[in-house]
Amino acid sequence: MARDSEATRARILAAAIEEFAERGLAGARVDRIAQAASSNVRMIYAYFGDKSGLFDIALRTALRSLADDVPPRPDDLPGWAGDVFDHHRRHPDVLRLSMWAQLERPGATSEPLDTYADKVDLVEASAPAPFTPVDALVLVYALAQAWFLSPVGLTAIDGDPNDAQRLAAHRVAVVTAVERMLRPE
Amino acid sequence: MARDSEATRARILAAAIEEFAERGLAGARVDRIAQAASSNVRMIYAYFGDKSGLFDIALRTALRSLADDVPPRPDDLPGWAGDVFDHHRRHPDVLRLSMWAQLERPGATSEPLDTYADKVDLVEASAPAPFTPVDALVLVYALAQAWFLSPVGLTAIDGDPNDAQRLAAHRVAVVTAVERMLRPE
Repeated sequence: MARDSEATRARILAAAIEEFAERGLAGARVDRIAQAASSNVRMIYAYFGDKSGLFDIALRTALRSLADDVPPRPDDLPGWAGDVFDHHRRHPDVLRLSMWAQLERPGATSEPLDTYADKVDLVEASAPAPFTPVDALVLVYALAQAWFLSPVGLTAIDGDPNDAQRLAAHRVAVVTAVERMLRPE
Repeated sequence: MARDSEATRARILAAAIEEFAERGLAGARVDRIAQAASSNVRMIYAYFGDKSGLFDIALRTALRSLADDVPPRPDDLPGWAGDVFDHHRRHPDVLRLSMWAQLERPGATSEPLDTYADKVDLVEASAPAPFTPVDALVLVYALAQAWFLSPVGLTAIDGDPNDAQRLAAHRVAVVTAVERMLRPE
């Protein structure tokens, strides 16, 4: 029984991540999530409160899975940036969810997420002046995500931005950028 | 008379940029734009077609003003990144509009905007291997925007992320990052 409800929760969360990533908080429909999760709206509200509550948990779950899948490697931040790039390539939902949150629910990203504090500690030794560890993390994430947040009018100038070879070349650029940026003077 | 209609158009566009930046394409209301612009819905449709058409023109206008206000300086891309950072700080609407476009209307960023092609030509000589000019532009923009797109849970770890001193310190980090990244080996 407990196992059943855990499985149901997981199905609802997976469906919620997909629906919110596609349509955002305002555009998402809980009945569509219920249908995709073979559940029902009443059960979703019982588990997660209202639509905003479900959104917050979906966002946190997606960010947590990014953090768990590609934890910072303090001894190799350039390699880590490459891993984050790969993760975004495989899971475009995470970036879309983060963008919706930023636009529709900035409060959802403001609570002190312990994952960030842990990461800041991890990169402390790898952030040469003038970078604080927070600066370094913000900039490394930005480089790793850049391709997927850029207007297609720019990324398509060299050809299809989703072409495997183009992506591989840009991945090299990302890893090199982090390497050079964090090399002590 | 021609001058009047130009002024009306400009007022509508300014109001549209504000409304779309705040609420996105789906959430925006044309009657609210009309009211803010001291115009009316009928005139907006006459000038701009439908709501999506107005969104596309608002986006293009905001991006164009970014391009005009802080054109790439090929001989000083680090300094230019600092300028772009300042522009985003002063005009948060541009980034919000771009994010909404990416989420709700990806097609709007895909047309070959001549501004991008021009910029790519401009930075050609300043992008050392392995960066193509497109890679370099994508990464420089990402660094300049990073702070404003990062979750507050991360940027607030060092204190208020909107504090003038904190912003100045991060600006130094951005300029330094671009400098190191683009320094030829």
